[in-house]
Amino acid sequence: SSSSSSSSSSSSKAQKKKDFLAVYATLRDEIYQDLPNYEMPEDAREWIYNMIDYTCPTGKLNRGLSVVDTFRILIDREPTELEVFQASVLGWCVEFLQAFFLIADDIMDESITRRDKPCWYRVKDVKMIAINDSFIVESIIYKLLKKYFRDEKYYVDLLELFHETTYQTELGQLLDLTSQPSNNTVDLTLFTMERYNLIVKYKTAFYSFYMPVALAYHMAGISNDATFDEALEILLEMGEYFQVQDDALDCYADPKVLGKIGTDIEDNKCGWLVCQALLRATDRQKRIIKDNYAQKDPRKVKRVKAVYNELDMWNVFQEYEEKSYQSLLKKIDNVKDVPKEVFTTFLNKIYKRAK
Amino acid sequence: SSSSSSSSSSSSKAQKKKDFLAVYATLRDEIYQDLPNYEMPEDAREWIYNMIDYTCPTGKLNRGLSVVDTFRILIDREPTELEVFQASVLGWCVEFLQAFFLIADDIMDESITRRDKPCWYRVKDVKMIAINDSFIVESIIYKLLKKYFRDEKYYVDLLELFHETTYQTELGQLLDLTSQPSNNTVDLTLFTMERYNLIVKYKTAFYSFYMPVALAYHMAGISNDATFDEALEILLEMGEYFQVQDDALDCYADPKVLGKIGTDIEDNKCGWLVCQALLRATDRQKRIIKDNYAQKDPRKVKRVKAVYNELDMWNVFQEYEEKSYQSLLKKIDNVKDVPKEVFTTFLNKIYKRAK
Ligand SMILES: [Mg+2]
Ligand SMILES: [Mg+2]
Ligand SMILES: [Mg+2]
Ligand SMILES: [Mg+2]
Ligand SMILES: [Mg+2]
Ligand SMILES: [Mg+2]
Repeated sequence: SSSSSSSSSSSSKAQKKKDFLAVYATLRDEIYQDLPNYEMPEDAREWIYNMIDYTCPTGKLNRGLSVVDTFRILIDREPTELEVFQASVLGWCVEFLQAFFLIADDIMDESITRRDKPCWYRVKDVKMIAINDSFIVESIIYKLLKKYFRDEKYYVDLLELFHETTYQTELGQLLDLTSQPSNNTVDLTLFTMERYNLIVKYKTAFYSFYMPVALAYHMAGISNDATFDEALEILLEMGEYFQVQDDALDCYADPKVLGKIGTDIEDNKCGWLVCQALLRATDRQKRIIKDNYAQKDPRKVKRVKAVYNELDMWNVFQEYEEKSYQSLLKKIDNVKDVPKEVFTTFLNKIYKRAK
Repeated sequence: SSSSSSSSSSSSKAQKKKDFLAVYATLRDEIYQDLPNYEMPEDAREWIYNMIDYTCPTGKLNRGLSVVDTFRILIDREPTELEVFQASVLGWCVEFLQAFFLIADDIMDESITRRDKPCWYRVKDVKMIAINDSFIVESIIYKLLKKYFRDEKYYVDLLELFHETTYQTELGQLLDLTSQPSNNTVDLTLFTMERYNLIVKYKTAFYSFYMPVALAYHMAGISNDATFDEALEILLEMGEYFQVQDDALDCYADPKVLGKIGTDIEDNKCGWLVCQALLRATDRQKRIIKDNYAQKDPRKVKRVKAVYNELDMWNVFQEYEEKSYQSLLKKIDNVKDVPKEVFTTFLNKIYKRAK
């Protein structure tokens, strides 16, 4: 398997992304070509074409690409063209699942931009039609699975994995959406590590970390529950680690490097920094956080960040990062059923990331 | 089969609805009881419990009940308790699918009330969280199918039927949402019978008419494509007939009998009356429709209705109703694969309905 993985890494990261995007173009065209089977007039066909082009292939594509990467590591030979195509389709199913969630998430969060463009619901003539568009994006997942996996013996496993992961993510979104009072006041008692970890696990880790690997497992013919459980345990921990980084970078990264300006403080987020800060804060510091969190005023944001600095939160984060990294390495070292590389490649992509 | 059907009709319509609602209570409680498996805290569990209680069991339940009714007609004996329960679960899956669509539809249409209560998104503290709630309602369908049908040989057929019907309905919603300019001006050229029929077929007929019968077919062990196609042809026509009635009643029914005040004219709807009126209108009448459609002013609504009366649209509708009824009877008379009663019961529930 080391030869197949080195041959896979011999094609550059940029080339892999290009190949993956070529599969997207094929799938998008097929969806468009299929719409006359539903008697759709040209205006509706173009709407769907433009909508999925705007919302689905415009992210970093890490989740989708990792299905293909993981599959390559799992099999002990060069994959066939068909296998690469099928793994790419599963990768795109994850990206479509994410697009389904993000279209709606941006409406619910009243976000302005996503991936350097206006959020889809803010595009002219779209508005609340975006809700139905998000539904269509979700439906396309099942059209793709039916078209390309119907005859595979793991077809039902794929369907059930998508159903289950979708439900988990929705539960995470619900936790997130109900984690602060709806009138935008600040309730510090809701910023607990327990709730934080729960939100992260359900809202992000299942679909972003476990799902891509589990999909590759199914394609590789793995059917042993224990092997899936082993991956689940590692990948949920990795998902937590990833989200903690995300929250630390939101406050501390250079916006030019990060590619966006963090707004977790303004947005009243149940983030890692505020939860950890509250575990360490004096009554005076708690009062400052309560009075200055969840407001757009840059002076108030600064006051919260000043408390974080008093508490040396960047250092607290770095200690967490090191501890979490070591814990993951140890767990990965115990992996027996699959090449450890499945997890180390994943982990090394995110360890000490700056964006 | 006549004995089983008469025994089924011996339990009153009210009793059947009561039994069906008892199954709902069981399913709702099971969903609530299952949430600790997802580590959900009590506030999230209660949110979901209240949300589905508010949105799912509060309609007329015709679609759900017709799965049970159809199954009883199809089998030539008394159904077992388990079979009645399973058919009821499928009925509830249709009701959950409808709730998923309606929660979102009310946001997109900016509706105020639904089933005599504020729309879910207008309930205090809900607002846009309703979008994620609609997702959760959809996910519950697949949890129920997995729990109660996983070992049936038609399990995949059920999953694929729900996926396909969901996609069809979403395409119908897209047609509906893009059938008038987004700035709420009136474009009469978009009010064609061709587009009208397409919207009705996709937005309503598949999920409301075909799906309940197709689900009962699967449970009854029918697997012949031609038998499903025969049902499809009849039930899509019946769905069209039903929606034309709906549009006629929106304008002409007594609001006290109908249970709501029709607002299709105010809402710029691509309804049957406006499409048919435009086929008959003089230039003067077209001008009046163009200038007075899609506005809340009751005097303007009256002017549109005056044109409908000049064109004798209630009579045009009654002629359509009779023609359509006869055409359906003729098609039903050719049915060979299943008892004709499958379709006549359905049709007689809606023929000349007043609400
Ligand atoms: Mg967001
Ligand atoms: Mg959000
Ligand atoms: Mg973030
Ligand atoms: Mg509506
Ligand atoms: Mg609507
Ligand atoms: Mg109506």
